[in-house]
Amino acid sequence: MRGAVIHGSGDVRIEDRPDPTVIEPTDAVIRTVAACVCGSDLWRYRGIADVPHPTPIGHEYVGVVEAVGDAVTTVSVGDFVVGGFLHSDGTCAVCRHGQHANCQHGGGYDGCQAERIRIPHADGTLLATPGQPDADLVPSLLALSDVMCTGWHAAVSAGVQAGSSVVVVGDGAVGLSGVLAAAQLGATTIIAMSRHADRQAIAREFGATHVVAERGEEGLAQVRELTDGIGADCVLECVGTEEARAQAVAAARPGGMIGLVGVPHGDLPTEELFWANKGIRGGVAPVRAYLPHLLDLVWRREIDPGRVFDLTLPLEQVAEAYAAMDERRAIKVLLQP
Amino acid sequence: MRGAVIHGSGDVRIEDRPDPTVIEPTDAVIRTVAACVCGSDLWRYRGIADVPHPTPIGHEYVGVVEAVGDAVTTVSVGDFVVGGFLHSDGTCAVCRHGQHANCQHGGGYDGCQAERIRIPHADGTLLATPGQPDADLVPSLLALSDVMCTGWHAAVSAGVQAGSSVVVVGDGAVGLSGVLAAAQLGATTIIAMSRHADRQAIAREFGATHVVAERGEEGLAQVRELTDGIGADCVLECVGTEEARAQAVAAARPGGMIGLVGVPHGDLPTEELFWANKGIRGGVAPVRAYLPHLLDLVWRREIDPGRVFDLTLPLEQVAEAYAAMDERRAIKVLLQP
Repeated sequence: MRGAVIHGSGDVRIEDRPDPTVIEPTDAVIRTVAACVCGSDLWRYRGIADVPHPTPIGHEYVGVVEAVGDAVTTVSVGDFVVGGFLHSDGTCAVCRHGQHANCQHGGGYDGCQAERIRIPHADGTLLATPGQPDADLVPSLLALSDVMCTGWHAAVSAGVQAGSSVVVVGDGAVGLSGVLAAAQLGATTIIAMSRHADRQAIAREFGATHVVAERGEEGLAQVRELTDGIGADCVLECVGTEEARAQAVAAARPGGMIGLVGVPHGDLPTEELFWANKGIRGGVAPVRAYLPHLLDLVWRREIDPGRVFDLTLPLEQVAEAYAAMDERRAIKVLLQP
Repeated sequence: MRGAVIHGSGDVRIEDRPDPTVIEPTDAVIRTVAACVCGSDLWRYRGIADVPHPTPIGHEYVGVVEAVGDAVTTVSVGDFVVGGFLHSDGTCAVCRHGQHANCQHGGGYDGCQAERIRIPHADGTLLATPGQPDADLVPSLLALSDVMCTGWHAAVSAGVQAGSSVVVVGDGAVGLSGVLAAAQLGATTIIAMSRHADRQAIAREFGATHVVAERGEEGLAQVRELTDGIGADCVLECVGTEEARAQAVAAARPGGMIGLVGVPHGDLPTEELFWANKGIRGGVAPVRAYLPHLLDLVWRREIDPGRVFDLTLPLEQVAEAYAAMDERRAIKVLLQP
């Protein structure tokens, strides 16, 4: 089969790779219908993370089941399935708390930007759609594999509920998904911090009630003006840089919560959090825990998280997909095998 | 009147001080029925915090209203009242969110280890009991002024609910109050980490289902054995040292919450929190927000948080009260003017 392999900084190639097979009785093998490039894939592409040897890459996918091991009971050959960016057994003590991203027996995949993917722990990882989806639903189903569930995790971690005021820091695909999540969870004030007209437009479409283009003190002043002068109940931090985290903490009101899904770089302002009673929560999203609800919303066309894909390319052009994301020519690229 | 004044490390004296009076129309003046010494008072007593000049000290009290300003409407002369360790107006944007400890117009007192106290913002700070309390209720009412509400804040911040597993790090008056709070909130596994027999006994009386005397890896191993091998849903960190915080983070399961009320010293393990989806929340307790519920529980004798007082002294012996707390001869000392 054909699959993407990263060889080093700036060097992702489409290559012939062995077809995956069922190894464990709990495995499934799927034929990929769509995959995509994640902001976190860019760490290695940009040389921020090492690539010690050529490595199959990608962790987001939707597809059709081609084979299942003997122990798989919840998905069958022919099912259209969505799964999260980490596999999970769904039965360990951690998964039983809905924390599938920290499954005691979970892990990653051997490259999902590929024509076929081996899915370990298929029962604990995959969820089948009620039937074969219309083609126009595929991007939104694919978004559930990571960004939509990650934005949802930010909103849930920040405790967004009916009537909340919410600030979203970061206007990438995850931040935009966070806006959509906040709207779905009933937030009434949703402030998207974004400087890019195209992303601002999607943010508004997803439910942002306000857009703040400024950063730093000027941006914070605008947030406070919209939040009784004290900051927001909930802040979704969808970037991960120290600057973004500082902005997020400052944008929360006393007693507010910051939902963190940007991979953290640098320390947290411990004393600032404590004395203002601001909390933080978040991390790697437990996709499988959120899938039933969010897949239902997509299936009933109540949400359209696939709007974050603004470029579609054939899998063979994966190198161009990475370049477009790296150069910010695209918010998020969908790949079709 | 007589009141305690700290002059420097190890030097707290009882002195003649001017009687407080109503200054603002929102003030009340109370005659102190009981006050006490707080673990945080010991920072200055131990020389950890500076004492630049002689300063009236103490921030916990119950008393009877002697005078009120013209604008005070919710308490009257003769009422027995409880108030928190910070005053709050109860009306600002922050208080309206129940975050009275961060009131936009709040602050501290001019020394509560004294015969009389001026209470700014009386309406937003004090709560009157339904009638004059029996003498044996006074310690529990006094405990509401800080430690019980602070333990409650740890439990609320950690999200303790019916069925939760809870670890309490710290067996001082706040940690013990945290045990009591967790029990009241419906936790079914409550693990008190304590090495002192007298404190272990109170912890069990307050609802601890298990006591772990070991610290470090050995203590964590025992916690895991009691929590499906993964750690507790909720951890109450009631100390504030870096060691205690590390213990608290390690004792939480993936996706768990740590309620922090120990004043933080040192950084948080940001990456450990993120990758395990562990959250933190907490800070200075919004006493006034919790008072109605907790005062009702005390009044109906459903909880007895005053059990943390194991030494009662006349106010005149305040120096001995500090020494007894400093030398850990007492968990918490009640002072009677």
